Amino acid sequence: MSSTPSPASRLFTFVAGSSGPWTVDAVLPVVGDPIAAAPKLAVIAGPRADPDRDATWSLRGTTSNERYVEHDEKSTLVEKQEGLGRPAASRAALIPIRKNAAWWALAQDERRAIFEAQSHHIAIGLRYLPAVARRLHHCRDLGSDEPFDFLTWFEYAPEHEPVFDELLAALRASPEWRYIDREVDIRLVRTEG
Amino acid sequence: MSSTPSPASRLFTFVAGSSGPWTVDAVLPVVGDPIAAAPKLAVIAGPRADPDRDATWSLRGTTSNERYVEHDEKSTLVEKQEGLGRPAASRAALIPIRKNAAWWALAQDERRAIFEAQSHHIAIGLRYLPAVARRLHHCRDLGSDEPFDFLTWFEYAPEHEPVFDELLAALRASPEWRYIDREVDIRLVRTEG
Repeated sequence: MSSTPSPASRLFTFVAGSSGPWTVDAVLPVVGDPIAAAPKLAVIAGPRADPDRDATWSLRGTTSNERYVEHDEKSTLVEKQEGLGRPAASRAALIPIRKNAAWWALAQDERRAIFEAQSHHIAIGLRYLPAVARRLHHCRDLGSDEPFDFLTWFEYAPEHEPVFDELLAALRASPEWRYIDREVDIRLVRTEG
Repeated sequence: MSSTPSPASRLFTFVAGSSGPWTVDAVLPVVGDPIAAAPKLAVIAGPRADPDRDATWSLRGTTSNERYVEHDEKSTLVEKQEGLGRPAASRAALIPIRKNAAWWALAQDERRAIFEAQSHHIAIGLRYLPAVARRLHHCRDLGSDEPFDFLTWFEYAPEHEPVFDELLAALRASPEWRYIDREVDIRLVRTEG
């Protein structure tokens, strides 16, 4: 059994501003308050090295254990998914979401039922593997007032943008999405690194 | 549906040192590295107001949504449990624990099966309600290197200390506890406030 990475190495910070290897192509408000546009984005492993430096905004989150994925689903995901950083995957999306108080007040079995039995969140995602690679970051339990509960980072090749849009449309039409009260969709193009 | 408290108000800090309304009665190492003894403990809602002030140690964690409790279990818990701060509950225990990498690598259904079907964690806890009141704090996803994954705070009347010890013995004998690689048991007596 491999060891668990330390929380410091599970923390990622997304900094929008005037520099970074990703060029912002579009900032699309989906529901709730929008987010400021910025020309560039950097993805930092760990906390910001220069928190005082100007940034339009920064968002942080930590990778964690699965909250809903069951054993057989995990095996299938691990078998089909590919990692971040593939040379052909020059497009990315950062999608921060927040779920409402009604979601967080539900018991575990109620949340799992909405997530998978009703919304097919895992099954829908599986249909887009390995084209779309993703990493989920949790913000809700960072202990500070964060504007979102989750940040999901997606990477795909330019020709897969239509299927990525199809994936998002399927999730946004699901019962789970009734509990989402803020979502923004930030599209990026890798221009360095 | 009530609104969700903000993360700032869900964060609690336990500061051991020379002051605080709780007097440390015993610091019992259970498994793994022990923790330094200190005469007093303060429980702070939020972050430490004076992080530079001397403390023997401080531990922080945030309350969060349930990870394993299902709908019917939650209803029973809510019906039977009492809150913290009862005048008769002048004894407390702070029990920080850490689970190992094998635990965190398990899928949700595997962790739930160990937690309840095999270990009866919820059912055991229910037997000691309302005598023992508790609040669970999560540390693992704070985004920093925390020494424990969970901090549980228990309060009970002096005459219930034997049943509290029985509760801990039952949990420590369960399959879930094979995944715990660090645990300390700090017993306290309320001497102020």
